[in-house]
Amino acid sequence: MGCSVSETQKLIMLPGPTNVPPRVMRAMIKPLMGHRGPDFKEILSQVINKTKKVFQTKEDLFVLTTSGTGATECALQNIIEDGDKIIVNVNGFFSERLAEAIKAYGGQPLVVSSEWGKAPRTEDFRKIIKANPDAKALSVVYNETSTGVTVRSLQEIGKLCEEEDILLIVDAISILGGDKLPVDEWNVDMCVTASQKCMMCPPGLSFVSVSPKAWEKISVKKQHRSFYLDLPMYKKYMGDGFTPFTPAVSLFYALNEACDMILEEGLPARFARHQICADAVYGAMEALGLGLMAEPESRSHTVAAVACPSGIEDGKLRELIRTKYGIDLGGSLEKWKGKMFRIGIMGNIGSPEIMSTVSAVASATADLGFKGRISEALEAARKALARLPARMN
Amino acid sequence: MGCSVSETQKLIMLPGPTNVPPRVMRAMIKPLMGHRGPDFKEILSQVINKTKKVFQTKEDLFVLTTSGTGATECALQNIIEDGDKIIVNVNGFFSERLAEAIKAYGGQPLVVSSEWGKAPRTEDFRKIIKANPDAKALSVVYNETSTGVTVRSLQEIGKLCEEEDILLIVDAISILGGDKLPVDEWNVDMCVTASQKCMMCPPGLSFVSVSPKAWEKISVKKQHRSFYLDLPMYKKYMGDGFTPFTPAVSLFYALNEACDMILEEGLPARFARHQICADAVYGAMEALGLGLMAEPESRSHTVAAVACPSGIEDGKLRELIRTKYGIDLGGSLEKWKGKMFRIGIMGNIGSPEIMSTVSAVASATADLGFKGRISEALEAARKALARLPARMN
Repeated sequence: MGCSVSETQKLIMLPGPTNVPPRVMRAMIKPLMGHRGPDFKEILSQVINKTKKVFQTKEDLFVLTTSGTGATECALQNIIEDGDKIIVNVNGFFSERLAEAIKAYGGQPLVVSSEWGKAPRTEDFRKIIKANPDAKALSVVYNETSTGVTVRSLQEIGKLCEEEDILLIVDAISILGGDKLPVDEWNVDMCVTASQKCMMCPPGLSFVSVSPKAWEKISVKKQHRSFYLDLPMYKKYMGDGFTPFTPAVSLFYALNEACDMILEEGLPARFARHQICADAVYGAMEALGLGLMAEPESRSHTVAAVACPSGIEDGKLRELIRTKYGIDLGGSLEKWKGKMFRIGIMGNIGSPEIMSTVSAVASATADLGFKGRISEALEAARKALARLPARMN
Repeated sequence: MGCSVSETQKLIMLPGPTNVPPRVMRAMIKPLMGHRGPDFKEILSQVINKTKKVFQTKEDLFVLTTSGTGATECALQNIIEDGDKIIVNVNGFFSERLAEAIKAYGGQPLVVSSEWGKAPRTEDFRKIIKANPDAKALSVVYNETSTGVTVRSLQEIGKLCEEEDILLIVDAISILGGDKLPVDEWNVDMCVTASQKCMMCPPGLSFVSVSPKAWEKISVKKQHRSFYLDLPMYKKYMGDGFTPFTPAVSLFYALNEACDMILEEGLPARFARHQICADAVYGAMEALGLGLMAEPESRSHTVAAVACPSGIEDGKLRELIRTKYGIDLGGSLEKWKGKMFRIGIMGNIGSPEIMSTVSAVASATADLGFKGRISEALEAARKALARLPARMN
C-alpha cells in the first residue's frame, strides 16, 4: 500500500501525519457507539492498557482528543502556577514554541540553549538546576522535529532530575513508539505524544502520562483554569472507566488497532526497524552528496533533516517531489527556512517507502540540476534496508 | 443502514454520538495528507465555506480538534478577563457546567436560573443586564441536552443583546444543523457546536464562530493563557489557509462530506425533518402513556426527554433496550437521575430509526411490566412520520 502512488494516494513521508496502515483505517469505520456505555468503556480500557505498554509505564495515562500541542498544554498547565520556574531546552522551532507556551501559562522559562542541529548537554541542565533550586520542572523536547535532533542523554537527564527532585516533563511527540523511551525506568514524570506520528494513527488524539510525583504537584495547584485539559477531572472520570468529555470514538478504534500492531511487532523490533530505515535515509542522502543538518551523535531515527543542494530551495524541491514523484516531504522552518527538508521515518515504514523516497529525492535533485551520486545513494539505502526482517502488515 | 441491528451495528439514538451516514464514513478513510500542503489547504477552505453556510454566518468560523467542551472553553477563555461578569442561564446539567466553567476561567457567572425542564425568560435576562450594565457577555445554552429544552426566545435574546451592546455567546452543541439558528441574523457573536451531533460526523471536531464585535473584545484581552485554544493564533494561521496545530485530517474529510449532505438536503428541509421526527417521538411517548420532561413550548427537536414509567429506573430500561433491542438511548443526569431517559433525534434520522426506537421503548417498558398503549404509540409515530419526504441518503 505504502508506495503506490495515484491521484488519491500519495506516500506521505512527513514528520506527521504519516501513512496509516489499512488495518487501522478499517478499524476506524466501525459504527459509532455511545461514549458512556459498557462497549466504549471496554475499548477505552483496552486502549489505555495497550498504550501504557507502548509508553512502558505502569502509572496513569490519559488519551485526549487534541493534537500533540493540546497534550503539551495539558501537561504544563496542570503543573505551572504563576511565576513557576520551568527549565527548558531550546534547540529548534518546537522547543522554542514550548518555551513560549510556558510563558503563556504563567511560568518563567529558564532556557538551556543549544545550536539548531545539536542536543543540549546534561551538564548545562545540572548547572541551571544548581543555580535555581526552586525550579519546579525540567521540560525536554526529546526529539526536535524541526531539526531531526534526538536528546540521546535523556536517561541521564532522568537520573539528574531524580537526584535533584525536580519533575521531568518530556515532549516525545515525534518519537514515542519509534525509539527507546521507557517512561518509568527513565524517571519521566509526564510524557506527551500524539497519535499521528510513530503511533500510526490519523491525527486527533494525544497522550499524557502522569507519575505519582507529578500528581503531588498537580493536586496542590491552586487554580485549574482549563476544564477541557484538567487532569484531576480526567482522573476522576477514568476512575469510572470514562473520559470527562466526548472522545473522538472513531480515532479510539483506530488507536486500539494500531496498538495491537505495535505490540505484535514488539517494541525492540520496532525501534530497530526505525533505526535501520533512518540509517538507510542518512546513508543514501550522504552518498548522494547532500549534507545532514543534525550532529552525528544526535541524529533522529524518526525524522531526518537533510540540507538542500546549494542554490535549490526546499519549497521548490518538495513541490517537484510531491507533484512529479507523489511523495510528501517535510519543509524547513524559521532559521533554516529554504535551506533544508525533512523526511519523516515514522510508524508504517519499511523498504518500499524508503527506497521510493530516496529514489524521488535523487531524481528530483537531478531534475533541478544537482549532480548527485545516484547509484551510490540507492545502493546505500538498499544495503541498510537489507537488514530489515520480513514485513508484517 | 440505520435500523439494521447486529453484533457490530447498534442504532445509536443518543444525544451524540449519532449514526454516521456510510457516505461520511467512506470519506473518512481517504489516505492521510500533510496539513501544511496545498491539498489540505483546499479541503480546509471548502470545509470552512460549507460550515459557514450551515451556521448562516459570513463572519469568521474556526474548526478545532476538540470535543464541544473544548470549543466552549475556546469561546469563553478568549473573552473572559479575571473578574468579568458573564450572564448565564442555568436550567440543566450542561448549563450548570457552563456556569462552573466561567468561574474556572476567572469570570464571575451571573446566573439566571430556571427550573429543569423550563427555558429562561428574556425578561429575566433584561433585568440582570439592567442591574449589571458592566456585564461583558450573555451566554446561553440554546438546547439543554440534559433536559431536552430549547430556548425558543433566542432571537429575542439576540435583539436584547444588540440593544444593550453585550456579547451573545451561544452553546449550540446539541442543536446546530438540526434547528433554526441563523447566527448573523440573530446577532450571535460566538456560536459553538460539535461534529457528532446534528452535523452527522464522528466526534472529535468542534466549531466556534466569531463576530467582529467579539473580535473587539478578544483583541484587547491582556493575557491569553492557552496556546491550543487561542483564537488570535487560529485567525493568523487561517489567514494563510491553515490551522495552527495538526488538525484531525480524517475527521475533516468526514466533515466535508457531511456538509455536502447537509447542504444538498437544505437547511429548511433538514429542520423540518428533525421537527417531524421529534413530533413522532413526543406523540408516541405520550400516546404510550409516558410523561415528557420539558414544558410544551420549549421541547427540543433534537433531543427528547421522556419520564420513566413509575418504579422503573432509566438504567434498567436502557440496558434492556440496548441488549435486547439493539438501540442506545441517553441516560438521566444529576437531579433527574433514574427518573427519565433521552432520545437523540440528530442528523441521520428518519422513519426507520424513529419507528424502531418507539417500538423498542414500547416493548421494553412492557417487558418491565408497564401497561402502555402500544398500538396508539406506534400509530402516533407512523402518522407524524408520514409527513417526511422521500429519504435522500
